[in-house]
Amino acid sequence: MTKIQDLQGKLEQNGIAAAVIADPVTLNYLTGYYSDPHERHMYLFLISGHEPLLFLPELDALRASQTVPFPVVGYVDSENPWEKIKATLPQTNFAKVAVEFDYLNVTKFKGLESIFSAEFVDLTPTINLMRLIKSADEIEKLHFAGDLADKAVQIGFKAISSDKTETDIIAEIEFEMKRMGYAMSFETMVLTGTNAANPHGIPGANKIEPNQLLLFDLGIDANGYMSDMTRTVAVGQPDDFSKEIYAICLEAQLAASDFIKPGVTAAEVDAVARGIITKAGYGEYFNHRLGHGIGMGLHEFPSIMAGNDMVLQEGMCFSVEPGIYVPGKAGVRIEDCGVVTKDGFEVFTHTPKELLYF
Amino acid sequence: MTKIQDLQGKLEQNGIAAAVIADPVTLNYLTGYYSDPHERHMYLFLISGHEPLLFLPELDALRASQTVPFPVVGYVDSENPWEKIKATLPQTNFAKVAVEFDYLNVTKFKGLESIFSAEFVDLTPTINLMRLIKSADEIEKLHFAGDLADKAVQIGFKAISSDKTETDIIAEIEFEMKRMGYAMSFETMVLTGTNAANPHGIPGANKIEPNQLLLFDLGIDANGYMSDMTRTVAVGQPDDFSKEIYAICLEAQLAASDFIKPGVTAAEVDAVARGIITKAGYGEYFNHRLGHGIGMGLHEFPSIMAGNDMVLQEGMCFSVEPGIYVPGKAGVRIEDCGVVTKDGFEVFTHTPKELLYF
Repeated sequence: MTKIQDLQGKLEQNGIAAAVIADPVTLNYLTGYYSDPHERHMYLFLISGHEPLLFLPELDALRASQTVPFPVVGYVDSENPWEKIKATLPQTNFAKVAVEFDYLNVTKFKGLESIFSAEFVDLTPTINLMRLIKSADEIEKLHFAGDLADKAVQIGFKAISSDKTETDIIAEIEFEMKRMGYAMSFETMVLTGTNAANPHGIPGANKIEPNQLLLFDLGIDANGYMSDMTRTVAVGQPDDFSKEIYAICLEAQLAASDFIKPGVTAAEVDAVARGIITKAGYGEYFNHRLGHGIGMGLHEFPSIMAGNDMVLQEGMCFSVEPGIYVPGKAGVRIEDCGVVTKDGFEVFTHTPKELLYF
Repeated sequence: MTKIQDLQGKLEQNGIAAAVIADPVTLNYLTGYYSDPHERHMYLFLISGHEPLLFLPELDALRASQTVPFPVVGYVDSENPWEKIKATLPQTNFAKVAVEFDYLNVTKFKGLESIFSAEFVDLTPTINLMRLIKSADEIEKLHFAGDLADKAVQIGFKAISSDKTETDIIAEIEFEMKRMGYAMSFETMVLTGTNAANPHGIPGANKIEPNQLLLFDLGIDANGYMSDMTRTVAVGQPDDFSKEIYAICLEAQLAASDFIKPGVTAAEVDAVARGIITKAGYGEYFNHRLGHGIGMGLHEFPSIMAGNDMVLQEGMCFSVEPGIYVPGKAGVRIEDCGVVTKDGFEVFTHTPKELLYF
């Protein structure tokens, strides 16, 4: 059964005869075809009793038609896309049409409202649930992306030098990965000293500071699957305070990872890490959730945070990334992504986590 | 007058007492603060008679509060953002609230609907009109971004070698720009031979082919302003067909650029380039609009295409980028961005446009 057939089965069970897929990542997940139409229009129409139909910019029609095994219709910029869609679809009158509320902007939503006579329901939860449990093939791809993240961070470690800036090191990492044919899954972070004390710090022309911590947060997009890893290392001899928060963060990261197995909840995993950091007196400096799901998207379900009582199951993939950020002093984050297995958590990245000195 | 005051004046003229800005680029345009909250929530609330209020993830609150001269409220992942917003705002009952329909997804829109008692109207056209005419300061920034694109494409030209792949050359360009502290404004395209015959071709492990055309499409994001340039060059001695479509594309690009001045319409500019390509027999191979606006966004207004009767005015900035893509044979695109001046079109990029041989 293809993923499209799986989705169509779920729609039928819910009495929904039509769905419109607009998120390029969902389209990639369902069909293996990826492009980003930006402000243009790209929709996969799934209508019960008919073949799927992919509508997209004429620019992309050739490649799409070579990838997907069903009809592709392109439009050029001077055409009215809504009129063309309406003229192309076999039917536009339904009790319910499912669309992704989390992706579709209001303008495009109103465009769809103008061509369908239907009640619109949210497809996001159905898609999220489909993507939540990864198949063996998907887990293999996540391991592959994780291996590349391990390689990338090693390139970064080798590049450490007080002559270089944060962006110099980022440039070296990205150059090697790009030459291998891979894009980063998000903007690489290399943050030195107090810049790492900001959980969303921005790398720049800061020279790598001696006797400080240095934080790397990076990931690779390999065949549509993402990796995401953070390591914090010592450059020279950081002060005892830096070593102390590192040790606490590592204890929290290991304890939460060890705790993970089918049957525990996302909130409980977060609480294990948060409890250790809070008990050590740094709770206020860990001001984000413990983790996020990962797959074809960088941030998927499950969200590993207080309040999320989702019970973890085999095949769920997510990050475990506690951090301690003390403004003006030092910052630490340690992160692996992994998959829930029958009796634990198998990580995708294997770079050592004891404090490394450079 | 600040840009926020300018926007507030426009809202008041239209009898709108509240607006919610959700697009990170619009927020940057209005305040100079930029961050991407991804699936989290970031809203600038503009309520008549009150100070602006920026609501965003706690992670970003420190940096935001150092950048904007009005209150910043952060929320953590375990809080309900809608409840916190409702408790924070001085008033939630209005005749009309303006939001950006082109940016806001349906889920966030429904969240705003849950806290405001109001009719929602689209703020997108107001913002687009504000951003449409660039100030002298913005034009200077676009020239600066253009100069960097000229530098980047020269790096690419120097890297041309039949030993290298498309991605090798991209890696060299991006490495040098990153070391200078700049990010690309979109994924750099280097496309060899028939791969350039696909207007949305994807660069990969293809070795640079001798005696073929080679296409570069790239841009830099410098201080929030984007450049975007395309050059197609000859590697060795391409065949007469390649040279012929290059000459036609260049004639179209130059004629359209020469035609631009205040008072002509976007559609007329498109028609000048399209007329030349169509008359030469390649109209069907120029399957996209002639150009797009540029500024803090890569694709803004005005859209230079058939059907857009917008009259061009001084200060509008956009691309002129005709292309001829003959599948399986060869592809050409030539692109400069520039600004409409008192009596013409001043380009931001100055790399020569006659066919260069490498």
